Amino acid sequence: MGRWEPDAVGRLRAAALDLFVERGYEGTTVADIAERAGLTARTFFRHFADKREVLFQGSDRLQLAMVDAVLALPAQASVRDAVAAALRAAAGFFGDIRAFARRRRDVIAASAELRERELIKLASLSAALADALAARGVAALDARLAAESATLVFRVAFERWLEPDETRGFGAIADELLQRLGALHRAPRAA
Amino acid sequence: MGRWEPDAVGRLRAAALDLFVERGYEGTTVADIAERAGLTARTFFRHFADKREVLFQGSDRLQLAMVDAVLALPAQASVRDAVAAALRAAAGFFGDIRAFARRRRDVIAASAELRERELIKLASLSAALADALAARGVAALDARLAAESATLVFRVAFERWLEPDETRGFGAIADELLQRLGALHRAPRAA
Repeated sequence: MGRWEPDAVGRLRAAALDLFVERGYEGTTVADIAERAGLTARTFFRHFADKREVLFQGSDRLQLAMVDAVLALPAQASVRDAVAAALRAAAGFFGDIRAFARRRRDVIAASAELRERELIKLASLSAALADALAARGVAALDARLAAESATLVFRVAFERWLEPDETRGFGAIADELLQRLGALHRAPRAA
Repeated sequence: MGRWEPDAVGRLRAAALDLFVERGYEGTTVADIAERAGLTARTFFRHFADKREVLFQGSDRLQLAMVDAVLALPAQASVRDAVAAALRAAAGFFGDIRAFARRRRDVIAASAELRERELIKLASLSAALADALAARGVAALDARLAAESATLVFRVAFERWLEPDETRGFGAIADELLQRLGALHRAPRAA
């Protein structure tokens, strides 16, 4: 970061979100964002590859942290432990960004391009978690199902975390959902 | 169907698939499809709303059948029974269409528009199943998680059903996946 641009990233991010809400994602240019933030386009490109990165920056690190959490578990940990560990690692990323994440959600919901991008990120997360589980010796199909379960809980917990009346942290919500999911699958079958 | 157009639907579907593979989905018009099938565009539109419907026709009935299966269960059936029943109902739709479904999969994989359409159909299925479970008195969050589980198994089973070496029916595959998913979530946690 240049020394005359204190918190350039934060200012660019806030300006971008404001403009995406006001004019729509497609109707906003990098030049608009830089101008609103009182910075230059050159500064923008020092921090983001393009305007989409304002919304998706950090998702690679998030995925890496979740994968690392799976790989770092002791050998005797179960697949279920691995799913829980991945979700706990995600919780570390969702501290004080709830207000940003709520506005981000609304911007993404309004754009087909961004919705597809979000779905691709989730598919990538699921594939990476399945690879990590397979690297621990879990059979491919079980690894896939566990990774899809983790991604399912991640997705529903993230949605819930952003609801207006929700005050719990992401970790507590994900924990509850994982417990509930387990209880549903443990229930005896009548049929 | 007109009396001079025996199996118009089958001919239009085969022609459309051939053309989607040859020229790409975006590069194929309804006129092309009708011509290849030896029929008129008017006949095409008697059977399909547009060219996309060639690929997605039947998905509404599939969703309805899965929802009906959930609603038809006796009151004492568990949420897990409901998930299993929905998947069994789906199996009834996937009899002798495996060759068509494999080509359809490849066409969809090659088009961003079709990939998004497929994801929207899956989201719609999940929402409808959650509504059906809620109508049975299942708590909203559990209904959501169970519906997402059913959709997860549906999606992975469908993929697996289309693999080159796979000979089992959709129902047997979905059954196995549901068992495995249950086992993963029943496993004791070491942590």
